[in-house]
Amino acid sequence: MSFCASSLERVKPLWDRMLAHPFLAQTRDGTIPDETFATWMQQDYLFVEAAIPFIAALIPRAPREHWTPHADVIAAFAKELELFEERAATVGVNLRGVPPAFVNHAYIQFLLATAANEAYEVGYTVLYAAEKSYHESWKVVKSGIDPGSKWFPFVENWAGEQFGAYVSYLEAELDGLAREAGEGLRKRMYDFFELTVKYEIAFWEMALGGAAWPGTEEA
Amino acid sequence: MSFCASSLERVKPLWDRMLAHPFLAQTRDGTIPDETFATWMQQDYLFVEAAIPFIAALIPRAPREHWTPHADVIAAFAKELELFEERAATVGVNLRGVPPAFVNHAYIQFLLATAANEAYEVGYTVLYAAEKSYHESWKVVKSGIDPGSKWFPFVENWAGEQFGAYVSYLEAELDGLAREAGEGLRKRMYDFFELTVKYEIAFWEMALGGAAWPGTEEA
Amino acid sequence: MSFCASSLERVKPLWDRMLAHPFLAQTRDGTIPDETFATWMQQDYLFVEAAIPFIAALIPRAPREHWTPHADVIAAFAKELELFEERAATVGVNLRGVPPAFVNHAYIQFLLATAANEAYEVGYTVLYAAEKSYHESWKVVKSGIDPGSKWFPFVENWAGEQFGAYVSYLEAELDGLAREAGEGLRKRMYDFFELTVKYEIAFWEMALGGAAWPGTEEA
Amino acid sequence: MSFCASSLERVKPLWDRMLAHPFLAQTRDGTIPDETFATWMQQDYLFVEAAIPFIAALIPRAPREHWTPHADVIAAFAKELELFEERAATVGVNLRGVPPAFVNHAYIQFLLATAANEAYEVGYTVLYAAEKSYHESWKVVKSGIDPGSKWFPFVENWAGEQFGAYVSYLEAELDGLAREAGEGLRKRMYDFFELTVKYEIAFWEMALGGAAWPGTEEA
Repeated sequence: MSFCASSLERVKPLWDRMLAHPFLAQTRDGTIPDETFATWMQQDYLFVEAAIPFIAALIPRAPREHWTPHADVIAAFAKELELFEERAATVGVNLRGVPPAFVNHAYIQFLLATAANEAYEVGYTVLYAAEKSYHESWKVVKSGIDPGSKWFPFVENWAGEQFGAYVSYLEAELDGLAREAGEGLRKRMYDFFELTVKYEIAFWEMALGGAAWPGTEEA
Repeated sequence: MSFCASSLERVKPLWDRMLAHPFLAQTRDGTIPDETFATWMQQDYLFVEAAIPFIAALIPRAPREHWTPHADVIAAFAKELELFEERAATVGVNLRGVPPAFVNHAYIQFLLATAANEAYEVGYTVLYAAEKSYHESWKVVKSGIDPGSKWFPFVENWAGEQFGAYVSYLEAELDGLAREAGEGLRKRMYDFFELTVKYEIAFWEMALGGAAWPGTEEA
Repeated sequence: MSFCASSLERVKPLWDRMLAHPFLAQTRDGTIPDETFATWMQQDYLFVEAAIPFIAALIPRAPREHWTPHADVIAAFAKELELFEERAATVGVNLRGVPPAFVNHAYIQFLLATAANEAYEVGYTVLYAAEKSYHESWKVVKSGIDPGSKWFPFVENWAGEQFGAYVSYLEAELDGLAREAGEGLRKRMYDFFELTVKYEIAFWEMALGGAAWPGTEEA
Repeated sequence: MSFCASSLERVKPLWDRMLAHPFLAQTRDGTIPDETFATWMQQDYLFVEAAIPFIAALIPRAPREHWTPHADVIAAFAKELELFEERAATVGVNLRGVPPAFVNHAYIQFLLATAANEAYEVGYTVLYAAEKSYHESWKVVKSGIDPGSKWFPFVENWAGEQFGAYVSYLEAELDGLAREAGEGLRKRMYDFFELTVKYEIAFWEMALGGAAWPGTEEA
């Protein structure tokens, strides 16, 4: 079995828990409170922004043939930020000067530390796990959301075909990297796949009401 | 006012909150449950271990005269790990194979990402803030703990004179770095001082019962 | 005086030596042997390629407003590589599988090590110094070369207005960074400006006949 | 055949060239001019110093069991620097404020860039190749030098048993890393082994009279 298929199988209970998260169900069903969705928008805007230095940090470790695709991803993130800004302006959400929630800050540090210190294959695993999670999570939302919803542009962005093709590309590349990897490295890739899914779940949890820094802010 | 004095003043409410944390009070008063202290031991053991690559990552960015002190700190961390192992063996706590609590994992990522990407002065600020926090926190414990307590060796380690001299050295060096820094850099140093204190508080909070990964483990 | 103006003044003898380099004069005058120019093409192709991870490595250290410009520069380098490939195909030069000359390898390591370990301002200084050197060097060539020369597309690329505007942008940004920098950092920026110019001169020297690895290849 | 044995076999002509270098022969035979040896001392002092951040940068990428050995190597480099200072004081060589020769600067950048960007196994290969080269090179000198020579302490340092045991340790570890590595990674490790030997030869060449920066200093 390929590395990606095997990774998904290994974390199946976590993965199912992620896809069944109330944030996704409520967004799909149109019952999510506007201020809850706004919290997610504000935090994910910061997260997408921070994904730019994460990708950039991968490039000096990447094989030559990955440089251009990574540079393209940086450009794609810049476009995602514009999507946030357009939606925020349309629905009246403020994106400026919002401090990162604890879980968001932590997840960003995880991306940056991984890119800086782990083997390239491990960083690539985290990239794939995060993008795959987003693709599948928003497909859950897409399966039932009213196409006229003001949140639909986000749904279309990550659940759509173009993003799906990108995730498939990442999957094929990661499977290739994993085939070349020794036992110890592959073990670490599995661990970081799981860690990423745990951070993804924590992120949805935060959006739903867990933005506080432990011990210093009200929950 | 020096940078360090000014930093402490700026975060005073947070700082007081940290020093008043129930974990410290309960340890001082001898009322802390053994299993709670064991959780802290297990997690802090992982944290001290992770501080080794943090310090190592600072060296290539450090001025020449900081290389040897940083290398000495790595050796000091190795000794701290032995203290944990000695205490753990004595009181029957298992330190092997314990997974990091969410807050601990996050704090470690914060250290590593900061060392990798921020200016050296910012990384040094985080080092100072973390060590100063530990010195003062354990001084709170020392102020009332029974010297015969099985936890006393930890108290002595961080609240003692040798550690205090090390913190004073860091303070003098950091004040020197801050004097040389421009406005924008100094602003970032202040921000990371505060962030570190927030992670410290989150760490005590975690030790007291918040070890779970949000959304995937029971609190 | 601005940092950039002051840097250029400080290295004036080196700078004049660079602009007076025989490689530039011979290219301007149309007397450069084809195989000499081909050596430069092969080596500079490798150098431009390696500039991609250099720029990428700067991004995680860069202020937010520099991320997009740096990403754009990566795209510009990709276009420069296409220029090399188009010229190489037209004039019959092989660009594939050529090993880096010693000086080229060294210069690339200098870029990568600087981006990895030095303060962002120092990395930015190296970027500016290298681009400014290329702009001015190729302006020397442009001042006399036959516009019908088969090498003219290179001349136009670096001596042209678009590249000139980019260099002016870098200059303004670097002057801004230097204004914010403390004395010690500014000193280091000056040192790396000079180092870069020395590597630039070494690169022209290599193109003219010094491609060998010392002690292992014939000069 | 183990990776290290195989690496040595692959670069045999280069390796023999290194061991037959006139600098080594002249030092062995006592015919090396004092000022030539002084040049080597001054440059190697800078090189050993720069090896400290190289090793430090490896630690955050290293497996846990390599952290302490690397920290010990940093301490060993500090002792080597003291050996240089003691010898320099005894024989009247100035070690302060000497600028790096071109080849030395380049070699240092190669170390730092490799530690920053290449897989850990590749950085470890460079470490082993450099230390193995030094051990064998100084054994050539030891085979004939007068034990009363003022340079003998250097010979003893690198050709002695303690250093030999360290090189053997590195060899066993590197062979282990290579066994775990995939084909592509092992190929890159071979390439960097060869590159390191080429830099070593260039270093001896520089000591013998090639300290100039190409095009800007007299040879």
